[in-house]
Amino acid sequence: MRELSPEEIAAINERHRVRMERKKAIIDAKIKSADKKIGIIVVNTGNGKGKSSSGFGMVMRAMGNGMKVGVVQFIKGAIPTGDEKFLRRFPDEVSFHVMGEGYTWETQDRERDIEKAKLAWEKAREFLSDPTIGLVMFDELNIALQYKYLDVHAVIADLLDRPEMQHVVITGRGAPPELIAIADTVTDMTVVKHAYEAGIGAQLGIEW
Amino acid sequence: MRELSPEEIAAINERHRVRMERKKAIIDAKIKSADKKIGIIVVNTGNGKGKSSSGFGMVMRAMGNGMKVGVVQFIKGAIPTGDEKFLRRFPDEVSFHVMGEGYTWETQDRERDIEKAKLAWEKAREFLSDPTIGLVMFDELNIALQYKYLDVHAVIADLLDRPEMQHVVITGRGAPPELIAIADTVTDMTVVKHAYEAGIGAQLGIEW
Repeated sequence: MRELSPEEIAAINERHRVRMERKKAIIDAKIKSADKKIGIIVVNTGNGKGKSSSGFGMVMRAMGNGMKVGVVQFIKGAIPTGDEKFLRRFPDEVSFHVMGEGYTWETQDRERDIEKAKLAWEKAREFLSDPTIGLVMFDELNIALQYKYLDVHAVIADLLDRPEMQHVVITGRGAPPELIAIADTVTDMTVVKHAYEAGIGAQLGIEW
Repeated sequence: MRELSPEEIAAINERHRVRMERKKAIIDAKIKSADKKIGIIVVNTGNGKGKSSSGFGMVMRAMGNGMKVGVVQFIKGAIPTGDEKFLRRFPDEVSFHVMGEGYTWETQDRERDIEKAKLAWEKAREFLSDPTIGLVMFDELNIALQYKYLDVHAVIADLLDRPEMQHVVITGRGAPPELIAIADTVTDMTVVKHAYEAGIGAQLGIEW
């Protein structure tokens, strides 16, 4: 590849400047027009990695901004994860509630799972009626809805009844369409590739 | 809808038990066969929400497991985010380095951006040669690669040269194909819907 002349480099830099100026104008206008301030519902779904970890990243962000946080972890719970170990260090900032006894395919007992899910939703309702909590996270709630352990319409009614400025993040594959319909921001974490395929196991600090 | 008889409910519960038993066998076999333990490269890309927050969730998980973490934030940096404010509370656990002066469309000066990106990569190389660091996060690195502020082949050479057990998470839209090729786990955060569309603005605790 031949060397560029100083004039050519200057021209590239000028084109870049003009392009970025245009981009800045578009983004500034977007931010200005989107000015409603209100608690939103974020849903992270899909088969890829990052649904729960993104929710926990939002928990950290909220804590960094001085908000109180409530977390209910559905379905999971047999293994004390790094997330839980970490958040338990801040009992004044985060209320952490874990539903009992592991993934449903570890238990194979539907009636017990339903009972546990209902108890966990009672805790969820407490957070949803507390205006001092700025962010609520319902980790793996989508799984409980998918298996019909909880009624999606009852869950939605409670979500819509929450304090006006409270944010909610809900994770888990298979988010039901009724939930997507009432959510504000929905992301599908799509697998491009996964370390499993190369025979690399789940590891401390990555998967739990 | 008519009430189900006790026999019908028992039949549903038994089908569920058999299905979950089969699922458990499949998952146990998968976990058993994927037993290589080695540091992996995770890439979060796509236009949806959750790329950076998922990376920060992994940071939290690693901290919960007693790992040391290094973070370099590329491109961003003008606004002190909640993430940064939070992580600065743990100087013994997290080394946090932010590249100067905001998004590139705020600056419109390509040569200065290139210089800043190169300085930030020097910090990145320090983390990549420190075996006491269990997880390294390069936030928005993909943007710097996309704009060719950094050479993707030089970056890949440094990534592959890191300590064997060190994990890396790289975020930002537009991950280059060369990076995807050498990564272990790649997720595309796909927009299903975004609060912007409903005129809801970026908010404290959600977007920063």
